[in-house]
Amino acid sequence: MIENLFTHFPDAVAHQEAETFEALLTAPNIKIERIISTGQSTPPDTWYCQDECEWVIVLQGSAGLRFEQEAQTRILYPGDFVNIPAKCRHRVEWTDAKGPTIWLAVHYL
Amino acid sequence: MIENLFTHFPDAVAHQEAETFEALLTAPNIKIERIISTGQSTPPDTWYCQDECEWVIVLQGSAGLRFEQEAQTRILYPGDFVNIPAKCRHRVEWTDAKGPTIWLAVHYL
Repeated sequence: MIENLFTHFPDAVAHQEAETFEALLTAPNIKIERIISTGQSTPPDTWYCQDECEWVIVLQGSAGLRFEQEAQTRILYPGDFVNIPAKCRHRVEWTDAKGPTIWLAVHYL
Repeated sequence: MIENLFTHFPDAVAHQEAETFEALLTAPNIKIERIISTGQSTPPDTWYCQDECEWVIVLQGSAGLRFEQEAQTRILYPGDFVNIPAKCRHRVEWTDAKGPTIWLAVHYL
């Protein structure tokens, strides 16, 4: 079990093979997760549409987050956070290809 | 409303007058909060004992967090996180006096 958000990356991160998702806390009403991206993005023409809400902050790296109802992609740098309501269609346009982008995501009901 | 955790500090932080608490998200089951400490600690012989649970991470600075049932103070550096169950008595022994310590706290039921 990791105890520091900025260390102990999964092997997939070093090899930039895949986005990784690790639960840091799981409770009845919330799940807190570390997501590490290494250049991945949401597949073309695909939107995430979740039943639960998600509050997310980028803590390292950078990413482009697009909401269907917004014309422009939001660019997120370390410290930038966004609340994504349930059923709000969104996608990750891009993540930094030069190094890990660390997200802290709080999924809640 | 702030949108970045590492900027737009309240005036009290610059003057090291007081610890500051700002809600970043308030929902029925959770509250996400930015706490900025500038050397403050819990008053002597005082313990926090909360009805709700709290997951907390230090993102800048450092702090000493003590649980009543543990002999040693836990030293938290950026990225270190701790889950504090409801009714678990704890106190902040110290926070970095040289600069702001930024905590992200998730209070949940």
